[in-house]
Amino acid sequence: MADPQFIEKVLSGDIRSVARAITLVENGTAGSADIMKAVFPKTGNAVVIGITGAPGAGKSSLVDKLALHYKEKGEKIGIIAVDPSSPFSGGAILGDRIRMATLGLDKNVFIRSMATRGNLGGLSRATVDAVTILDAAGFDKVIVETVGVGQDEVEIVKAADVSVVVLVPGMGDDIQAIKAGIMEIGDVFVINKADREGVLRTQKELEALLSLAHRPDMWHPPIVPTVATENKGIEDLSAAIESFREFTASGQEQSLVRKHAIARWRLTELLRERLLADLMDREGASEKLESLSRDIADKTSDPYSAVERMLSATE
Amino acid sequence: MADPQFIEKVLSGDIRSVARAITLVENGTAGSADIMKAVFPKTGNAVVIGITGAPGAGKSSLVDKLALHYKEKGEKIGIIAVDPSSPFSGGAILGDRIRMATLGLDKNVFIRSMATRGNLGGLSRATVDAVTILDAAGFDKVIVETVGVGQDEVEIVKAADVSVVVLVPGMGDDIQAIKAGIMEIGDVFVINKADREGVLRTQKELEALLSLAHRPDMWHPPIVPTVATENKGIEDLSAAIESFREFTASGQEQSLVRKHAIARWRLTELLRERLLADLMDREGASEKLESLSRDIADKTSDPYSAVERMLSATE
Repeated sequence: MADPQFIEKVLSGDIRSVARAITLVENGTAGSADIMKAVFPKTGNAVVIGITGAPGAGKSSLVDKLALHYKEKGEKIGIIAVDPSSPFSGGAILGDRIRMATLGLDKNVFIRSMATRGNLGGLSRATVDAVTILDAAGFDKVIVETVGVGQDEVEIVKAADVSVVVLVPGMGDDIQAIKAGIMEIGDVFVINKADREGVLRTQKELEALLSLAHRPDMWHPPIVPTVATENKGIEDLSAAIESFREFTASGQEQSLVRKHAIARWRLTELLRERLLADLMDREGASEKLESLSRDIADKTSDPYSAVERMLSATE
Repeated sequence: MADPQFIEKVLSGDIRSVARAITLVENGTAGSADIMKAVFPKTGNAVVIGITGAPGAGKSSLVDKLALHYKEKGEKIGIIAVDPSSPFSGGAILGDRIRMATLGLDKNVFIRSMATRGNLGGLSRATVDAVTILDAAGFDKVIVETVGVGQDEVEIVKAADVSVVVLVPGMGDDIQAIKAGIMEIGDVFVINKADREGVLRTQKELEALLSLAHRPDMWHPPIVPTVATENKGIEDLSAAIESFREFTASGQEQSLVRKHAIARWRLTELLRERLLADLMDREGASEKLESLSRDIADKTSDPYSAVERMLSATE
């Protein structure tokens, strides 16, 4: 069981306890499931905003400015920055400190970077758990920012209440490749660095794509031009996020389907992690995994036969 | 058991059979494990080159030019383009056709795009399996190209014999965030679009970072400037890849450790997928997953309690 006093402190929004709870859950420490069970019933008040886009799109600046905007309105904001490519937290923690200095170090803005941890713990599972904790701790807005456009990152952003995709003008050919995925994800689109050349062309291309997919009963994602470094367009972004929230709050079928899909994904991720953890807890499992890995590396076994051997050895 | 005639055709490099084998394995069709077991012993001859970098870095052009370079030397080249953000294969297939027209439609160049499929099948597992098939089918070089810098994409690139990270001059602040990860991954660095402003600065920053991490007994990753669209620097890139190959072929401890780590990762991924598939095969599992997902969405259950209920219900 989780310590009731500790849970109480987390739920009251005590920053130190919130940070500790996230660390425990991130590392999958024994008892972290109990923390999650205890805080889950208190969730549902925060608006969770997922923000994604390619490196170089200026996501961090945009997130910081959006957070300041909410802060000025008297709200509490949590920011989770997901950095899957950084295996060490050193750089991330340094980055947090720099950003905290910009945003003002107070109890109303909480920033946390999350990176990959080991083989068993999934980054996406840890991220949504951290969001749950911030939600339960009374934060009004939780912003999840992901570097990159990978598989897990897409899932993380899809799990938010509102998903924002950040583009920049003239991103080149690769934008073509990610278009199909982006259209699926974005509830709101931002064209950042909108003082650059090519912004109208990018906007027109995007509008054309979105019109193709549009159906009358569905939400039509707005496109918001911003210049985050100059604080331009942040009000408009905030308004666009709010209008999507109102749209989903009206209980559209679309948003119920989405909630169910997010829950299914979250449950599946947890199951995946738990099943592997249970297997690795069995006696001799680690040693067996190591020796089978050596066999695969030496080509004395193929990976598929190794899986069968692993499962029968630990039965 | 896999049909021996079919396996024979795959191993002889018959393009149609290779394509079919990859499709079967990608979809996790019954019998796909048998295909993998049959082809695995024939692997180890191809040089697998992983290429990653942010969208807009010009990876596709670079890969195409590198493939042409190898083709002109009389080699057979397989290209796997991993596009995790595209949930539909339509766009990807169209893209393949355009690229095949550029590269010349012949039996010496094989291109295949892979996107996310469903919840059970892992993209990284499917990708490394496709590489294994191409290796066994007699391709001299297999190039794996990933869009994005997500968690899975990093793993895919790390699983290659040689990992190439593509940067462009002046990518902005976000490059700071991915530096730690990039340093871990890259055996060879490319600064593409090297006719742009800021190439020297990017090169110097990167060199400084690489020097920090350098140890005398370790490989020191070279930095190759290229302008892929003008076919500049491709020879140099090919030479850099070859010298890393020679370095690892000399049987350095470093490369044995790497082979073992790759095998462990591959085995773990397969186990994760297999354990979940086994669970979902049990009677009533799909229905239970759906009803528990609804409970989570309605907040009548938290995800962690749902996992326990799922596991005890299907025991």
